[in-house]
Amino acid sequence: MSESFTPTERTRVVREPQRGAYDRETVYRILDEGLVCHVGFSADGQPFVIPTLYARIGDAIYFHGSAASRMLRSLGVGANVCLTVTHTDGIVLARSVFNHSMNYRSVVALGQATIVEAPAEKLEALRAFTEKILPHRWSDARQPNEKELKATSILRLPLTEVSAKVRVGPPEDDTPDYALPIWAGVIPLRIVADAPIRDERCDPGIPLPEYVACYRA
Amino acid sequence: MSESFTPTERTRVVREPQRGAYDRETVYRILDEGLVCHVGFSADGQPFVIPTLYARIGDAIYFHGSAASRMLRSLGVGANVCLTVTHTDGIVLARSVFNHSMNYRSVVALGQATIVEAPAEKLEALRAFTEKILPHRWSDARQPNEKELKATSILRLPLTEVSAKVRVGPPEDDTPDYALPIWAGVIPLRIVADAPIRDERCDPGIPLPEYVACYRA
Repeated sequence: MSESFTPTERTRVVREPQRGAYDRETVYRILDEGLVCHVGFSADGQPFVIPTLYARIGDAIYFHGSAASRMLRSLGVGANVCLTVTHTDGIVLARSVFNHSMNYRSVVALGQATIVEAPAEKLEALRAFTEKILPHRWSDARQPNEKELKATSILRLPLTEVSAKVRVGPPEDDTPDYALPIWAGVIPLRIVADAPIRDERCDPGIPLPEYVACYRA
Repeated sequence: MSESFTPTERTRVVREPQRGAYDRETVYRILDEGLVCHVGFSADGQPFVIPTLYARIGDAIYFHGSAASRMLRSLGVGANVCLTVTHTDGIVLARSVFNHSMNYRSVVALGQATIVEAPAEKLEALRAFTEKILPHRWSDARQPNEKELKATSILRLPLTEVSAKVRVGPPEDDTPDYALPIWAGVIPLRIVADAPIRDERCDPGIPLPEYVACYRA
């Protein structure tokens, strides 16, 4: 397997091309860190963008198809989709309003999504979702039964046309602006997990699992 | 002005309809809390979903058009777009794998985006972007000059067809599963800001502004 995806006319980063990345390591890391993706598809000429859970297995992304029920109804299998994952890492305060920005890492994947039919592949995708939400959860929770597996609609998007875009570092101001007496820098942002909240209907005798207590976003 | 948006066939929440909300207060609050939206549009039959900065002014959303340069090139003005904002508030750990979920708040807005041409409106939108990124920043930073205003591509999407979807609270398990000896509950997630990082090229004599020091995401 090649170390990089080949940029196409549709995935090559046009604006700020120095921020583009196509290597699998960067793409995988961004995808594997996120919990929610935004899936785009069209129905009757209208684009829709729906947030949904996803997971990567190798060079395929699996995502919950129920979120794309409009797409499934309208287009059936083989629908063109765009799946985007974005992490916002910081607020970039430049001296000029014009150069204000965000530090971010995003992946955009284009292609045709197909419905996963095979029960074994569905189960594997569900396992990946669950382990992505919270490592070690899969073996602790009640496994899906046949009826649930049937009711679960999962789509697969092969990772073929894909690019990442990454902005890191300090603001980039126009040369004369560096002399201005304006504070400039970055406010880093990150997602944190607060203390777990036990379901009121969860028996207090059931201990908080280590993998829940230790979770860090 | 009505207190609620009227759901259409395209915006009415079909799956888990009890999570749907159409009142302006809920929609505005979700939009005003976010920093980055995901804009969806189609070009040559392929959907694209691009993260970009945005701000709401009344019943219009302004967003950076450079992110949609493919759209502008392909479709010009009056392009059908979908603009989605999502906050992920928690990981929902149910007893069954099947009922695992996320707590989230999202807004989906559909419509036709148009390019903002009037300099005054552009300036107002830039001010809204900047103040949304960081309140009080606008008056502190160097204001846009005429050249920068011209170089800024901003799109406006009127808020007409819009809906929110909100999931809060504990897991919802099937009745028999509540008897299982499995820990269940929610891990709350939130975005935090870390200590600001001064640009190395920022004179240490320039004090850290109060509005930067006090920033909370």
